[in-house]
Amino acid sequence: MNVDGKRYRSIWLNDDGISIDVIDQTRLPHEFVVLNLKSLDDSCIAISDMVVRGAPLIGATAAYGFYLAMRQDASDTAMQSAYEALYATRPTAVNLRWALDRMRSALTRVPPENRVEHALDEANAIAELDIEINQGIGRHGLELIRRIAAEKVAGEAVNILTHCNAGWLATVDWGTATAPIYMAHNAGVALQVWVDETRPRNQGASLTAWELGHHGVPHSLIVDNAGGHLMQHGMVDLCLVGSDRTTRSGDVCNKIGTYLKALAAFDNAVPFYVCLPSTTIDWEISDGLRQIPIEQRQGLEVSQVHGRLPDGSTDSVTITPAGTPVVNYAFDVTPAKLVTALITESGIVEASETALAQAFAEQSGRHR
Amino acid sequence: MNVDGKRYRSIWLNDDGISIDVIDQTRLPHEFVVLNLKSLDDSCIAISDMVVRGAPLIGATAAYGFYLAMRQDASDTAMQSAYEALYATRPTAVNLRWALDRMRSALTRVPPENRVEHALDEANAIAELDIEINQGIGRHGLELIRRIAAEKVAGEAVNILTHCNAGWLATVDWGTATAPIYMAHNAGVALQVWVDETRPRNQGASLTAWELGHHGVPHSLIVDNAGGHLMQHGMVDLCLVGSDRTTRSGDVCNKIGTYLKALAAFDNAVPFYVCLPSTTIDWEISDGLRQIPIEQRQGLEVSQVHGRLPDGSTDSVTITPAGTPVVNYAFDVTPAKLVTALITESGIVEASETALAQAFAEQSGRHR
Repeated sequence: MNVDGKRYRSIWLNDDGISIDVIDQTRLPHEFVVLNLKSLDDSCIAISDMVVRGAPLIGATAAYGFYLAMRQDASDTAMQSAYEALYATRPTAVNLRWALDRMRSALTRVPPENRVEHALDEANAIAELDIEINQGIGRHGLELIRRIAAEKVAGEAVNILTHCNAGWLATVDWGTATAPIYMAHNAGVALQVWVDETRPRNQGASLTAWELGHHGVPHSLIVDNAGGHLMQHGMVDLCLVGSDRTTRSGDVCNKIGTYLKALAAFDNAVPFYVCLPSTTIDWEISDGLRQIPIEQRQGLEVSQVHGRLPDGSTDSVTITPAGTPVVNYAFDVTPAKLVTALITESGIVEASETALAQAFAEQSGRHR
Repeated sequence: MNVDGKRYRSIWLNDDGISIDVIDQTRLPHEFVVLNLKSLDDSCIAISDMVVRGAPLIGATAAYGFYLAMRQDASDTAMQSAYEALYATRPTAVNLRWALDRMRSALTRVPPENRVEHALDEANAIAELDIEINQGIGRHGLELIRRIAAEKVAGEAVNILTHCNAGWLATVDWGTATAPIYMAHNAGVALQVWVDETRPRNQGASLTAWELGHHGVPHSLIVDNAGGHLMQHGMVDLCLVGSDRTTRSGDVCNKIGTYLKALAAFDNAVPFYVCLPSTTIDWEISDGLRQIPIEQRQGLEVSQVHGRLPDGSTDSVTITPAGTPVVNYAFDVTPAKLVTALITESGIVEASETALAQAFAEQSGRHR
């Protein structure tokens, strides 16, 4: 998507044809800095320090990191070390493991002298696949948005509420929840996006607002508390959110607070759509509330807020009295009953076990 | 309530027997500073600069400000000027006007030479009335909490979720939503209070957490996004919130985000109680969603966060990209259907037109 009028992805091959560039997301939204990755180490640090974040982008970065490792040493031993080093950067990320497995199994079949070239091809293929999936989600979501726009007075904006950052910065390009938004905007549909701040890490206020602002999509930041009021007053036409994990019955685990927005959408008959690659559906589990353990993160994420000071430097301020105990759950589960439908790369599917099994017969069948 | 082991109110007569002391709430939670008010001007500034906030405390401060004005000049002209000056500090506060009307009508009947003494008596009476009302709310709420505690394994904490600051700092003492909490804690009932951060002004993180911490009530700060997850997992036994305005049908206008918590409570069969003085029920209106206009405040409240820097100084950090548009609604309306009951000074009343009219026949009758 666009940054200062220039087209960007979140990760790309540097003009030198060798090294890899990424956007340093720890500096956003206050500074736009491109970081050059030249080695396995650079790549590991980029992932572990959250220079890159978002499951699909972490996967792609690991794949390119594997390629950079091959440039340094393409032996079997080096391949195993690279796998282990990259895997250890964020051990819980499913896409990370998937990308590394794919890289290793592709390169094992190739003699060491050809591995660099093949590694780059494979990493490119992983990045392209992510883009294709998101474009698929975008096309199906675009149809939905067009349908809503058609019912409006001509030129009146379609109001979309989104939570957290399921944007292009979390993927290689387009994003998941934002893909329909960018496609609709690019197609000339008038939009107004309500961007949930998304406490405690403020990914909405810092990343989604930054993305939409740079691409020129009209938007307004709101506190996480505000969405219910907007929906009560007819100011939201649909909600589009991402998913970290989806059960085979359509329960959606996503950033904390998603459930509250789904409740408000249900109470006000606002369609609530979840955008996700079908590959992230977990066919092993059916009860999101009971079967998905919710990560608790450190309290400092809540009690300290990072931002830009009046003098232009950045720092964190403490908003609580000294010693205030904090409990910080990172995700919640939205039961399928509150989800209008899932928008996947292969179509819009009702959030139910039957509909999902039918739409993804092959994937779901493998787990029966 | 207690601060560093010492009993405080939010406003009191200084030991000199003449001037008035208040807690400077703009310095909380980072510094506890008592401010001495000596004149009408001091009182006006305290209200307009939000040194004191919360409708009941604003009312009491205006009353004491009126008394201080009488010390300077007890003439009829001065009385009128004092009324106007204090009224202009926060023109939308209902309690402010009520307190000023009461002061003026009491003093008009008194000759100027006796007005100082009478003004102090009247201001004290206004403060005492607020305390009595809150104690009434507290006693009725305490019964509720005791009933829940009785159903628990002995010693297991009753989990209470609260939003914003309807605490003693917003009133003269006890608070509204916190009165049952303090009474239960003082009575030895084991409690655990979930304190909603309450974006954008963070009154939960800064004021409620400060109050509860100093009084020794076990509590944990959570982001506004988290309450739904807690309720889904049986970690909340009841919600207690305040109200800025309540319709005769029991719709509740309160800090933005209250509605989302009420939805989650309803979805998970968690009782949702609203604590309020019956005097704040607006008998003129019955449809909160249509009849209560919601104030929009400046975007800087959202995009800038105030807190303590590592060096101990305080400042604001900007969390958004430069130029991000913000929409900032300050309140929302929770429909009566989501409210389990209203806890008032004269009892617990179902949130319905019939029940309210029956419980408050005299007040409601006046508006028929």
